[in-house]
Amino acid sequence: MRIKEVRAILEEKALDLAFFYNMDSSRTSPNMAYFSGYDGLGALIIPKNKESLLIAPKMELERAKRGCIKNVYPLDKKKFFESVKGILAKKGIKAKKIAIDGQNFSLNFYRHLKKELKTQDKDISLECLKLREIKTEKEIRMIKKGFAYADKILEKAIKSLKSLKTESNTAAFLEYEAKKLGLGVSFNPIVASGKNASMPHHEPENARLDSGFCVIDFGVKYKGYCTDCTRTVYIGNPSGKEKDIYNFLLKIQKSTINNIKINDNCGKIYEKCVNELKNYSKYFIHGLGHGVGAEIHEMPNLSLGSKDKIMKNMAFTVEPGIYVTGKFGMRIEDTVLMKEKPIILTKVSKDLLIV
Amino acid sequence: MRIKEVRAILEEKALDLAFFYNMDSSRTSPNMAYFSGYDGLGALIIPKNKESLLIAPKMELERAKRGCIKNVYPLDKKKFFESVKGILAKKGIKAKKIAIDGQNFSLNFYRHLKKELKTQDKDISLECLKLREIKTEKEIRMIKKGFAYADKILEKAIKSLKSLKTESNTAAFLEYEAKKLGLGVSFNPIVASGKNASMPHHEPENARLDSGFCVIDFGVKYKGYCTDCTRTVYIGNPSGKEKDIYNFLLKIQKSTINNIKINDNCGKIYEKCVNELKNYSKYFIHGLGHGVGAEIHEMPNLSLGSKDKIMKNMAFTVEPGIYVTGKFGMRIEDTVLMKEKPIILTKVSKDLLIV
Repeated sequence: MRIKEVRAILEEKALDLAFFYNMDSSRTSPNMAYFSGYDGLGALIIPKNKESLLIAPKMELERAKRGCIKNVYPLDKKKFFESVKGILAKKGIKAKKIAIDGQNFSLNFYRHLKKELKTQDKDISLECLKLREIKTEKEIRMIKKGFAYADKILEKAIKSLKSLKTESNTAAFLEYEAKKLGLGVSFNPIVASGKNASMPHHEPENARLDSGFCVIDFGVKYKGYCTDCTRTVYIGNPSGKEKDIYNFLLKIQKSTINNIKINDNCGKIYEKCVNELKNYSKYFIHGLGHGVGAEIHEMPNLSLGSKDKIMKNMAFTVEPGIYVTGKFGMRIEDTVLMKEKPIILTKVSKDLLIV
Repeated sequence: MRIKEVRAILEEKALDLAFFYNMDSSRTSPNMAYFSGYDGLGALIIPKNKESLLIAPKMELERAKRGCIKNVYPLDKKKFFESVKGILAKKGIKAKKIAIDGQNFSLNFYRHLKKELKTQDKDISLECLKLREIKTEKEIRMIKKGFAYADKILEKAIKSLKSLKTESNTAAFLEYEAKKLGLGVSFNPIVASGKNASMPHHEPENARLDSGFCVIDFGVKYKGYCTDCTRTVYIGNPSGKEKDIYNFLLKIQKSTINNIKINDNCGKIYEKCVNELKNYSKYFIHGLGHGVGAEIHEMPNLSLGSKDKIMKNMAFTVEPGIYVTGKFGMRIEDTVLMKEKPIILTKVSKDLLIV
């Protein structure tokens, strides 16, 4: 995916090749997966003027070949850089000045690389993020398919909420419905009821769903692309005041989205939303939104002081919330695709659902 | 957990404090979680001579306080190092020479830290791994509880295999059963049937379980500790030759475990197992085993050339396999706790189960 654009970065910065790697299955590089379609262990090398190549351990070769890089070579994990140097030499690929992914390189891997390859390097992680924040039409199609799946699963969980009984059971159900279809989840689902809802990143507990607002935050990963959506439902009988607060937040969430225009400054979008929250703004304790794509959190960043600008074909969340510690919490989150106007990708109803 | 041991490392190396951080929920530091009991965003500072402190974003404060560090301070994510410097100054904590976690520091974070804190630093990631490879009695109790859960779930999945129908459905079921109980999984479960079983890290597909050997690799995460176990079952009617190969592998797996003694060299254990595999050794395409604990893969490393030594209270896997590309695959994996003799933590039967 978008190898051409990486080559243009190399050309512009006078670099010989770009180097990405995964050495640890629990901390993988989103860029390696994005450019190669392979998220297993190994390394991806994109030379400026030659074909890209993937180096993967023997046990991963079959899987690596299913990605979009056609040249796949075996890696001796014990002799990582010997494998790399051997293949570079064999292919006649120059590696004097290389592009690295400083955000996804561990410090120790980098030190090892410097010692072994003796190259000059330049960090292009910001360029990769910038490249990924604007989605191609093909990516948009995949993201939309992901949302079609995610919406159905979330609706099913909300409908079954009472019978799911506990937070952890509801979260497990969401994940189960995704994985049954061979999809991933873009993060561990959040199900936070009662007082727990005041923690935006609450970890679901194996305890009965409490009455009051219940925040459900869920996304799938479909062919490498994340979705993200939060709905807040009410368990029991909300008071008039509770309904009012929810509808106040909903009104602001909707108007925030409707007012987003191309070239808007993301920090300003956040500030405007905070102003509209008036007295509740002190209970809004996180950013307004983030880009969604190969990673669940990517550019642009819609929060205080952000200088990012809204551009066509960006996909990002808008997710204001109100959290009163020890009392209650709510969040309403849509993912938006920016065209001439913002298009909401999430189709799940936002009216307060009482279960 | 084991803050005292970190302090001893600082003392020995004449360092003022140890610094751990998480800036990205998809690439978290196992050491931060291990020492603080908190795996969210933020930083953990363990000074040599003062109380440890945790710095977490406002939205995570409640969750951070549930860990084992009692001093929790708010972090301004936009001004990460200003928050850190402010707290260090307020507490009178010296930070001239600090211990860093080079394996879990991103290169860019490190560069940022150097610029902001202007400290000298020393990588202690290897020391942390070494510290974690020997389990305390408390850790052993937790790991054993994890296995009690994991065994039941795996047995349930094997019993239900026919009705689960697809690879992805079986993997989803395993995960669902864990998450329902509020447990995590230590990695995405592997369910590989038919030809897919020849890929050790196959990703479960939304396709009917194929006849032949079916490899199921599964582990839970219980209170921060991983479990790991693989069983190979047979779907359909195995031929005499197929049974023979399985029983041959099983015999080697058992004898490999039984022969492990304290002070054994891990590279040698691997080599001995390879020798016993005789003609099949060319189809054994990965390491023999790895430590299991806060991370699914940690020290010791039982593979070619490893110089690690077996010590009392290590927990590690023994998992020989035979993989014939495009034909079939099998793996039998137990996690072993080293006492005077190896104790197998996995209780699921290893006899070839035909479903």
